[in-house]
Amino acid sequence: MFVSDHAKVNAAGNLEFSGVDTVALAQKYGTPLYVTSLDGVKASCAEFTAALDKHYGGNGMILYASKANCNKAICKTVSSCGFGLDVVSGGELYTALQAGVDPARICFHGNNKTETELRLAIENDVGRIFADSLAELDDIERIAGELGKKAKVLVRANPGVEASTHEYIMTGQVDSKFGLSIDKGDALAGVLKALASDNIELAGIDCHIGSQIFEVLPFVDEAEMLMNFLFSIRELTGVTLGELNVGGGFGVRYVPSDDPLSADRIIGAVAARVKRFCAENDFPEPFLMFEPGRAIVANNGITLYTVGCVKEIADVRNYVSIDGGMFDNPRYALYGARYTACVANKASQPADYRAAIAGKCCESGDLIGKEITIQRPERGDILAVFTTGAYNYSMASNYNRNPRPAMVVIDDGEDRIAVRRETYADLVSFDEE
Amino acid sequence: MFVSDHAKVNAAGNLEFSGVDTVALAQKYGTPLYVTSLDGVKASCAEFTAALDKHYGGNGMILYASKANCNKAICKTVSSCGFGLDVVSGGELYTALQAGVDPARICFHGNNKTETELRLAIENDVGRIFADSLAELDDIERIAGELGKKAKVLVRANPGVEASTHEYIMTGQVDSKFGLSIDKGDALAGVLKALASDNIELAGIDCHIGSQIFEVLPFVDEAEMLMNFLFSIRELTGVTLGELNVGGGFGVRYVPSDDPLSADRIIGAVAARVKRFCAENDFPEPFLMFEPGRAIVANNGITLYTVGCVKEIADVRNYVSIDGGMFDNPRYALYGARYTACVANKASQPADYRAAIAGKCCESGDLIGKEITIQRPERGDILAVFTTGAYNYSMASNYNRNPRPAMVVIDDGEDRIAVRRETYADLVSFDEE
Repeated sequence: MFVSDHAKVNAAGNLEFSGVDTVALAQKYGTPLYVTSLDGVKASCAEFTAALDKHYGGNGMILYASKANCNKAICKTVSSCGFGLDVVSGGELYTALQAGVDPARICFHGNNKTETELRLAIENDVGRIFADSLAELDDIERIAGELGKKAKVLVRANPGVEASTHEYIMTGQVDSKFGLSIDKGDALAGVLKALASDNIELAGIDCHIGSQIFEVLPFVDEAEMLMNFLFSIRELTGVTLGELNVGGGFGVRYVPSDDPLSADRIIGAVAARVKRFCAENDFPEPFLMFEPGRAIVANNGITLYTVGCVKEIADVRNYVSIDGGMFDNPRYALYGARYTACVANKASQPADYRAAIAGKCCESGDLIGKEITIQRPERGDILAVFTTGAYNYSMASNYNRNPRPAMVVIDDGEDRIAVRRETYADLVSFDEE
Repeated sequence: MFVSDHAKVNAAGNLEFSGVDTVALAQKYGTPLYVTSLDGVKASCAEFTAALDKHYGGNGMILYASKANCNKAICKTVSSCGFGLDVVSGGELYTALQAGVDPARICFHGNNKTETELRLAIENDVGRIFADSLAELDDIERIAGELGKKAKVLVRANPGVEASTHEYIMTGQVDSKFGLSIDKGDALAGVLKALASDNIELAGIDCHIGSQIFEVLPFVDEAEMLMNFLFSIRELTGVTLGELNVGGGFGVRYVPSDDPLSADRIIGAVAARVKRFCAENDFPEPFLMFEPGRAIVANNGITLYTVGCVKEIADVRNYVSIDGGMFDNPRYALYGARYTACVANKASQPADYRAAIAGKCCESGDLIGKEITIQRPERGDILAVFTTGAYNYSMASNYNRNPRPAMVVIDDGEDRIAVRRETYADLVSFDEE
């Protein structure tokens, strides 16, 4: 009935999420409110871990792409599940360190890491840096030297258009701000530069092919291309690199027609191809990394709003306005993202009311969706929007000077605040007199 | 040479903005850095005030649409210029009050004002509330009654598709989350409801037709339609409403081909039409309001970045990465907005290097522009992006857990911090243990 596995209607007729009454949550904490099920996050993590164990003997690491939703509570939770952490900025790295994540299990991504960020990473002995450019390799070499460290590095490679017929990969992989092109020879130049450095330990290759991918073949083909690249590196240099990060981009269910791949399916297929390649080419099986972000948190999050103005424009459209909008969820405005929703205090009633769900920002594009079917809403109702656990909190702004919502987590069936709600006073606290 | 009036090349060959060397600003305050010229803001305000005086005998008020860029320094500045302030949320209202803005000159907009927001507005005696729906009129009536106040209200009217052939207005004006349709009779229902209320003083009608409009005719036609509506209200009820707010949406120059209207042109044309209508229909000339936001701040702001990775993909594209991106300026990602830029420390050199200006966020769409022509950049250069004074700071997020930039203002030729830079510690200060 709902796109989320953790949602159901309880005996009171209210929407229950991860075992907790959402109407009670709205009353207790106010709205708008992000709700993240850490119980669901743990279950999602367990699926990835089990798949890596089953299909690859656990010879690898699952990294949580923390850009999807990064705060101390979530960093702690995924770490407690044995995941490593993929961070993409000094701020994510700082958060992970503050959350007590083992630096050895932190991996640092990004197309333009600043001097400050690289220094923070190397000083704190992060486990791996995914180097994105030749210039960054120079920076790592220099900073690691200055700090008397040896940085473990994977080179981000770009498999390129010609290597595949999949639309996902064809979409501007060579024309990208990320990584070094294999086809153009840039990736090999990066490998050679890293191998020549005294302060870099080159561990392997990493890659990322896209987002919201629902087919397994792009990942399998990507893995094959990267294995071929590792093989050619050995042919050219005699060096066998031992690590391969195939990245993330695993699709999740926003609307019922979305049909996501299971962790078992993705990892099973990729592991099989890598193992076959290694057997056929007498190449040692690499330490294998996957980077789910959205797949870990999206469906384990919902957002609760209070319904305000309900505007029924005869023969045109109904507009149901909520006390949030593009400041807490800009994904419709950015991508035309699709969502499903439910009137939480009327969850047992038929959903037969079609409306635009509008935010409160002074901008026409501030919608959660233009045509969403929900229960007949009234002012004061609680509206739950599903699949908001990824790229909502992390992309939130103070647009229109709206304070950002609190985040409540559900952990072992109990709810608690993980991120405090902003106040008006917080908004002006950066303003000088 | 530059899209901004306040930009030029100084003797050192650096970009000067509003009389200040931008390279020196970057060195003094770090990057990314928002720079707003309050001197420029004052000049822009003066143009609007002069136009209202010249064409309408000053019988009205210019409101700064603070959603474009709202902080204490800017609220104080526009107020000191005699502007009123248009706020769209409790947070903007709170900021204006903290800045010492006279509540009588604050006007409160928004399609879904919450109970808390309306109460804050009425308690603080804001000058005008622009009521957006019938339900909101009920709320205002009730809350004003509870507080023993009489709220001054304008009803937001929607002129509708049929009333005009202009594309700006045709774009979904009836199908809108904002206002009450004149054609459907909803606006009149709002007027009648407000007139019947003991706790509401209905002052007039307000409207807003769009954004980035470069022609005068839509505003003139809008004014005519609204005057017709005021006239028909008098015919039907015998009540002459005395205020008309024609809103904003005045285009600004982002790229050289943009040809903005002057304040003199817009106000001159609207005032002439209103005066003619009043003369022809024996109707008293209303108190006239205009709401420039972008037109006051956009061109009075630039953003300074430090160039990081420069990636030249042979035969494909150059990518120049900066230490900011969609977290400080999401307008390319949101709207495909166009910008111009300049290497500030090489401003006297020829601009002949074509590149995508890429942000540091882990997202392919994180660009400032896909094809911008600048001076040949190197790591460490300072890049200035023009026309970022509106909807950059106000839409900024912590995406990828990046701290938001500081804002420096230039006031009487002197630079000072108006908004403090966020730190990593700020980012986690809302996270519970």
